[in-house]
Amino acid sequence: MNPESIRKLLEEVRAGKLSPDEGVERLRHLPFEDLGFAKVDHHRTLRVGMPEVVFGPGKTPAQMAAIFRKLAKHGKNVLATRATEEQFSAVKKISRGAKFEASARAIVLRRDRKRYGKGLITVISAGTSDIPVAEEAAVTADVMGNQVERIYDVGVAGIHRLLAHREAISRSRVAIVCAGMEGALPSVVGGMIGIPVIAVPTSVGYGAAFHGVAALLGMMNSCASNVTVVNIDNGFGAGYVASLINRL
Amino acid sequence: MNPESIRKLLEEVRAGKLSPDEGVERLRHLPFEDLGFAKVDHHRTLRVGMPEVVFGPGKTPAQMAAIFRKLAKHGKNVLATRATEEQFSAVKKISRGAKFEASARAIVLRRDRKRYGKGLITVISAGTSDIPVAEEAAVTADVMGNQVERIYDVGVAGIHRLLAHREAISRSRVAIVCAGMEGALPSVVGGMIGIPVIAVPTSVGYGAAFHGVAALLGMMNSCASNVTVVNIDNGFGAGYVASLINRL
Amino acid sequence: MNPESIRKLLEEVRAGKLSPDEGVERLRHLPFEDLGFAKVDHHRTLRVGMPEVVFGPGKTPAQMAAIFRKLAKHGKNVLATRATEEQFSAVKKISRGAKFEASARAIVLRRDRKRYGKGLITVISAGTSDIPVAEEAAVTADVMGNQVERIYDVGVAGIHRLLAHREAISRSRVAIVCAGMEGALPSVVGGMIGIPVIAVPTSVGYGAAFHGVAALLGMMNSCASNVTVVNIDNGFGAGYVASLINRL
Amino acid sequence: MNPESIRKLLEEVRAGKLSPDEGVERLRHLPFEDLGFAKVDHHRTLRVGMPEVVFGPGKTPAQMAAIFRKLAKHGKNVLATRATEEQFSAVKKISRGAKFEASARAIVLRRDRKRYGKGLITVISAGTSDIPVAEEAAVTADVMGNQVERIYDVGVAGIHRLLAHREAISRSRVAIVCAGMEGALPSVVGGMIGIPVIAVPTSVGYGAAFHGVAALLGMMNSCASNVTVVNIDNGFGAGYVASLINRL
Amino acid sequence: MNPESIRKLLEEVRAGKLSPDEGVERLRHLPFEDLGFAKVDHHRTLRVGMPEVVFGPGKTPAQMAAIFRKLAKHGKNVLATRATEEQFSAVKKISRGAKFEASARAIVLRRDRKRYGKGLITVISAGTSDIPVAEEAAVTADVMGNQVERIYDVGVAGIHRLLAHREAISRSRVAIVCAGMEGALPSVVGGMIGIPVIAVPTSVGYGAAFHGVAALLGMMNSCASNVTVVNIDNGFGAGYVASLINRL
Amino acid sequence: MNPESIRKLLEEVRAGKLSPDEGVERLRHLPFEDLGFAKVDHHRTLRVGMPEVVFGPGKTPAQMAAIFRKLAKHGKNVLATRATEEQFSAVKKISRGAKFEASARAIVLRRDRKRYGKGLITVISAGTSDIPVAEEAAVTADVMGNQVERIYDVGVAGIHRLLAHREAISRSRVAIVCAGMEGALPSVVGGMIGIPVIAVPTSVGYGAAFHGVAALLGMMNSCASNVTVVNIDNGFGAGYVASLINRL
Amino acid sequence: MNPESIRKLLEEVRAGKLSPDEGVERLRHLPFEDLGFAKVDHHRTLRVGMPEVVFGPGKTPAQMAAIFRKLAKHGKNVLATRATEEQFSAVKKISRGAKFEASARAIVLRRDRKRYGKGLITVISAGTSDIPVAEEAAVTADVMGNQVERIYDVGVAGIHRLLAHREAISRSRVAIVCAGMEGALPSVVGGMIGIPVIAVPTSVGYGAAFHGVAALLGMMNSCASNVTVVNIDNGFGAGYVASLINRL
Amino acid sequence: MNPESIRKLLEEVRAGKLSPDEGVERLRHLPFEDLGFAKVDHHRTLRVGMPEVVFGPGKTPAQMAAIFRKLAKHGKNVLATRATEEQFSAVKKISRGAKFEASARAIVLRRDRKRYGKGLITVISAGTSDIPVAEEAAVTADVMGNQVERIYDVGVAGIHRLLAHREAISRSRVAIVCAGMEGALPSVVGGMIGIPVIAVPTSVGYGAAFHGVAALLGMMNSCASNVTVVNIDNGFGAGYVASLINRL
Repeated sequence: MNPESIRKLLEEVRAGKLSPDEGVERLRHLPFEDLGFAKVDHHRTLRVGMPEVVFGPGKTPAQMAAIFRKLAKHGKNVLATRATEEQFSAVKKISRGAKFEASARAIVLRRDRKRYGKGLITVISAGTSDIPVAEEAAVTADVMGNQVERIYDVGVAGIHRLLAHREAISRSRVAIVCAGMEGALPSVVGGMIGIPVIAVPTSVGYGAAFHGVAALLGMMNSCASNVTVVNIDNGFGAGYVASLINRL
Repeated sequence: MNPESIRKLLEEVRAGKLSPDEGVERLRHLPFEDLGFAKVDHHRTLRVGMPEVVFGPGKTPAQMAAIFRKLAKHGKNVLATRATEEQFSAVKKISRGAKFEASARAIVLRRDRKRYGKGLITVISAGTSDIPVAEEAAVTADVMGNQVERIYDVGVAGIHRLLAHREAISRSRVAIVCAGMEGALPSVVGGMIGIPVIAVPTSVGYGAAFHGVAALLGMMNSCASNVTVVNIDNGFGAGYVASLINRL
Repeated sequence: MNPESIRKLLEEVRAGKLSPDEGVERLRHLPFEDLGFAKVDHHRTLRVGMPEVVFGPGKTPAQMAAIFRKLAKHGKNVLATRATEEQFSAVKKISRGAKFEASARAIVLRRDRKRYGKGLITVISAGTSDIPVAEEAAVTADVMGNQVERIYDVGVAGIHRLLAHREAISRSRVAIVCAGMEGALPSVVGGMIGIPVIAVPTSVGYGAAFHGVAALLGMMNSCASNVTVVNIDNGFGAGYVASLINRL
Repeated sequence: MNPESIRKLLEEVRAGKLSPDEGVERLRHLPFEDLGFAKVDHHRTLRVGMPEVVFGPGKTPAQMAAIFRKLAKHGKNVLATRATEEQFSAVKKISRGAKFEASARAIVLRRDRKRYGKGLITVISAGTSDIPVAEEAAVTADVMGNQVERIYDVGVAGIHRLLAHREAISRSRVAIVCAGMEGALPSVVGGMIGIPVIAVPTSVGYGAAFHGVAALLGMMNSCASNVTVVNIDNGFGAGYVASLINRL
Repeated sequence: MNPESIRKLLEEVRAGKLSPDEGVERLRHLPFEDLGFAKVDHHRTLRVGMPEVVFGPGKTPAQMAAIFRKLAKHGKNVLATRATEEQFSAVKKISRGAKFEASARAIVLRRDRKRYGKGLITVISAGTSDIPVAEEAAVTADVMGNQVERIYDVGVAGIHRLLAHREAISRSRVAIVCAGMEGALPSVVGGMIGIPVIAVPTSVGYGAAFHGVAALLGMMNSCASNVTVVNIDNGFGAGYVASLINRL
Repeated sequence: MNPESIRKLLEEVRAGKLSPDEGVERLRHLPFEDLGFAKVDHHRTLRVGMPEVVFGPGKTPAQMAAIFRKLAKHGKNVLATRATEEQFSAVKKISRGAKFEASARAIVLRRDRKRYGKGLITVISAGTSDIPVAEEAAVTADVMGNQVERIYDVGVAGIHRLLAHREAISRSRVAIVCAGMEGALPSVVGGMIGIPVIAVPTSVGYGAAFHGVAALLGMMNSCASNVTVVNIDNGFGAGYVASLINRL
Repeated sequence: MNPESIRKLLEEVRAGKLSPDEGVERLRHLPFEDLGFAKVDHHRTLRVGMPEVVFGPGKTPAQMAAIFRKLAKHGKNVLATRATEEQFSAVKKISRGAKFEASARAIVLRRDRKRYGKGLITVISAGTSDIPVAEEAAVTADVMGNQVERIYDVGVAGIHRLLAHREAISRSRVAIVCAGMEGALPSVVGGMIGIPVIAVPTSVGYGAAFHGVAALLGMMNSCASNVTVVNIDNGFGAGYVASLINRL
Repeated sequence: MNPESIRKLLEEVRAGKLSPDEGVERLRHLPFEDLGFAKVDHHRTLRVGMPEVVFGPGKTPAQMAAIFRKLAKHGKNVLATRATEEQFSAVKKISRGAKFEASARAIVLRRDRKRYGKGLITVISAGTSDIPVAEEAAVTADVMGNQVERIYDVGVAGIHRLLAHREAISRSRVAIVCAGMEGALPSVVGGMIGIPVIAVPTSVGYGAAFHGVAALLGMMNSCASNVTVVNIDNGFGAGYVASLINRL
């Protein structure tokens, strides 16, 4: 069902082939969600500049390539997260322009290089082990048309390293902060600046880090009020929501 | 927006006051969910014989009485769960017919006494402390028009007590089994009969019972395949879904 | 011990070879559970149309084939869940009719194709990663003699996809809803229809999904009262209990 | 230490009273954090339109009044969260203009009514029990100079109620979504709109709700990528960060 | 159904009033569990010297007195655990001989003072706060006819205090060891002696003691192989099972 | 330091070479634990008939063989638990008499076949997957000189299978009950008999079984008072403590 | 048994009343722990300047006063932690010199004012709600003879407040850092200084703070290597161990 | 920015090229953290004798060798923890002096053999499986210039083995105690001596040991007040902080 079929129905009413009561009855038996005009329009706007995304884990290289080929047809940027070299090899064969961002574990096909974000997104990570998650966030924001700046290895146990970047951070419109272990960095960053901070707990650590739970809890309880949190290792989600904020 | 307004729109189309294109346009700007004809009809059938329900905790006696009065206007049975004597005193004043089922901690106003359930629902509890939850289930099923049989205090540490009720249990169409502590009773009941068993973990116990978590986990891992589980102490939910099954 | 031996005892009593007191004494020393006549009869009815089932994990292909051969002798449908291709290869050699349902990870031998279920069981899944669990449920229900309809990839973040299937869902007698991550789908489905909904949390997700715990908790706390829950990834259990309900 | 004292030091250098080396030495022994000029300036901008905030629990009415009086001297809006009637009575005596927002459990003193937020913040809640948290978020956003719209009692088990507000929601720049129990509402809202969604798990529920943990986990695992999460019952934090986003 | 009715049936068979086939048929329709002769006999032996027990929490003084009166009719020892002074006052009125063991929070009525246990049961506690649990165990063992020795306040941080009792401990047939906090005492005691040690975690402690969970886990992981564990604060269970062992 | 050196000291005192004061002084500076005569004697008795035990995991075949050889020198039975075929191959070369009990995953060298236990230890398991743990318990009890009877595959969902073994169970002095999933079997067994029941949770199950946690909690909360619990999969511990009880 | 009795034994040996063999035999039957000379001496040194300590919760004012009186007889400082005003009133009557340190919830009787600690102990707290725990630590260290400096309300969201105290902190020999919520402060402090940092998680916070668990996990996973942790709210323990370190 | 550039600035002021106001302005725009003179000095002292450290897991042999080479340039001791043989082979090629401490899983390059610690650090472990963690602690302390003594395999179930080392332990200035399973050893050691005890929970154990959580909780709740705790398996952290204490 679509606008055309409804117009046809209305034309039948106009032509007297269908009484208003019969028209009501026929409309009545349509699944209402198929009417959904506004929905389509609304979403159309929303989707401008949004990449097509595929989550890598559990897919064979062949499956990944097939999905990637299908998504690439829409003419937008395509992003495969948590991808492997093997998946990339298969994708490369069917999509010449695809690149492998190794440190982000991402396959990226860039078509649309327009700048949609109004300002700077800064991605900050506590330790070097947090970089893959930070890069996933950075690459996502980049693919979604944002200027991105990276500030890595500025954990809270060496607070001066972070302070050295204070000016850069305060030029940002949104900050993404990735940290494992005690997950304290978002609180410190949040206290330094007055912008939204998206905290990403990482599964970095061992023992009582519980694969990111300690960091997650730390961030949920941040004493800085400008911090919100996404799932453990969810660099993509952080980059995505930061991009939405940066378009506002 | 409702069928009448749509009919009016169609009549304008018919009368030539509105072109089909204009009609499409006007329909297009309606929030689609307001069209929802089928929804209403469908739900009307679903709601036959269903009680109005209010959850007691956190409501003052006055608030409870006000809500109860409002719900009672629909002419259906009304059920207030986890209610207190104080709440009942307030309700009693505005609704003469209301009764307090003390052991179920429920206020009940019975209007519709039709038998909607096709067979017997048996409510089984492990210990005497589980009875409030079991009674909540039993009263719910009763208010929803079912024949209910209660078999209480038949915990697994005295398996002969349960076995003595085997015949009664096997006459049922659905069984609700309430147990705290190790929550083992649903598995044993489930193995005795070939009907759906709805397991209700209760918060009865102490220490490593963790307020019903031990029972909940026990029931989730039941070695009997005919067991499904509801939330801790959720006698109402169990009675509700058993009633739905018994109407089939 | 069996009815014949009891009849023989009674004949000795009748013949005066055994006094009533001696008869009581002899009966008294029988393990009472061996008397269990009714039990057998009762269970016989229950077991009509029920498949023989074997759980695959931890079994070598040879062990699986041996168990399968033994179960196949009962002349019923046979179902091996969580099975592998290797197990199937071994089974195939001894049971020509066995089929491998790859998406359900199940080996199935269909003998009895009678329709035992009275209506439709709909199996709904949130994401494509939930399909193996959903298929396990669907195949189980199918093997137990039910008409099954599948509605996949209708997660709550795209609510219109689910709404598009509303009519199909409302034709069902029972719905099975499989979801990982936040496990929200059963609540939405439960609110749309007035039939029993069996929720299956899946281990799909990462980080704070905790291998299905987030979904399990979500489902236990469903705000829809017609939802009951089975163990994480327990597609079989959901299909089994849905089949029992559908026979009522 | 402040700019004046540094100027004095420089003047001594200029006057030759202090050699450059001695100047370096004296600067060297200053705690560097006291130099922090940029810091102050930077923060001054950040703090425009920000309310003074006090967290109520654990404070006697007298303590609350004393803190409130002190904060009120800054000439900004003052907000006391999780406040009681008793605390308000004490505050009222020293601050005539203070109001008690009972449903938000907040004391508010409005001085600055300027609109700092550029667009609309919508606050959505699943059930009536979630309203205190939702109101805390709404009052916070209001006190911080935003236009706020409330959409309450639109839980996922009655999805049509939520859909009826789709248009209002899509007019927003940021949405705050509060839900207890299974915490599914942010996912559904997140899927409907392309703006940042701040999810607030509430401690509403019982049994396996674990005082908001089930909702928190559900939200962390949201299948909608535009959802970030704050602490259980943290309406203030959600309102605060939504306000920051709305200023962008 | 009982032996008499079966004898009557056999007499009818003998008298030719009932054919053996009719006899089989009538026996067949008896619920088999009612036949259970052996059960009764078996249990009769088991129950010699066993007290009647009632769990105090949640019972009004009147309810406690009523239950106590009923249990006291069996002529055995009666034990009410986790009882209050108020419950005792009510019991005292209807049962003159009842005593309140305040430190064990138990009401005891001693009728049968026979020594059923063959040797000594030693009850050991780590700190003074563990004494109520230890006393519950000691009083239970005493009421069940055992010689009991108490060794209190011998926590592992003062290992010499425990060592000073080594000889007394090694005279025991069974040891009950109660400890909260880290729950280390059973491991140390278990390593000192070659007898069964029943470990009782107590809810003593704060913070990461998690109401006895730390102690429970410590005891479950004891490096001494002769340690088994009961529920947190379950002094009764420990005293009960120690009594069973001491009768062997 | 040993008795001889003390005798020598006393002889010096006797011979006047050492004054009593000097003797006190010299004794005073001995580490007191080296004096420990009684300790040795006491333990000597305890260790009669006790096997030498080695825990397999993490040891190379060569390490296992070396440890086994060393333990075998004491002339007692030797037991290696959680052992592999590879470890056994290495052990076999240096200890001809060693046997591999595959179902118990144990290497056993039997030297002492004396019966130390006074009665029967029965080992009961719920499902076939629990057998490795049950066999570990059974082999341990056997190696420690006990008569052992195995009753396997009698889970609570088929309660008649368990009841069929009631007489055998009630002949036992101690019962070991192994169960995974909901861990309900010890409660049912405990209710049938008046002897000590040692419950062993197994890691059998999936999803919300949490690798044995559900079973562990079920057993900790058993409604049968004669149940104590050991660690998950700790068949050895159960067999060990059952042996100690059976020697009493 | 004590040195005197051993000397007597040696004198009997010297006098020939006892042969060396008999002496060995008599020594052999002494419980070895009663010999423990060294133990006493050793401990004597350790206990110099150590206060007598009593834990307040669960004690009636009368009990507290009685214990306090007894401890006060040793002539040392006495410290009652987690004490109430009521307990202090009772103590005051029997011990004139006792003082109530309200902010530390401690009763203190100072007798020995000697400075045992060699340097400065700094106690740092993140928020004002953490002060009771910080004060417990500070008062403990003070009572144990240390110079103590307090730096409060320097949480990580306002890092400049902490930095302003850098010099004071770096003068310390040991630091105690108390924080609730995300518990990040010890990591930051640990990174600023090269001395031992004792971290005290506090139960301050709500929701996902889980009564101090979030802070505890944060501290366990500190990226600063000089941090060790004590139990939640255990200010006493932190003060105690800091005092031991400061005596080194 | 560094002292030189500041001196230059001051010289310009002195020379009249820059007015004091301009100087203030220029200083004002320097990031204050780059001024940080004191910081450098302070840290210089702290870092004397501190090794360069690298954490092995997740690094390829080539990466490890590259990092090691870089760290080795500082002329200090270098320590790689949790290292593998493969990593060592690669390191060996570029750093002749590097040694592999297999039992500690550490690569060590010793340059500075000065004794920085004033006394003895004793490292104690409960079982042989705890040795890798204990060795990590011991090697760390050794590399940091301490005298280290090892006392292994003295678990609490054989308390006499620990007591035999009492004198050695009491000669220490700090003790590190490593234990898995129930983690009771630090409490016992803590009770024996009056020095700081650093407890290291290890992940040794199975089932309810939960990979070190049981031990961690046990240690957090130690009844000995001189115990502080580090993360599970964090031998390095324990060795590091013990070294800091031993320098005091």
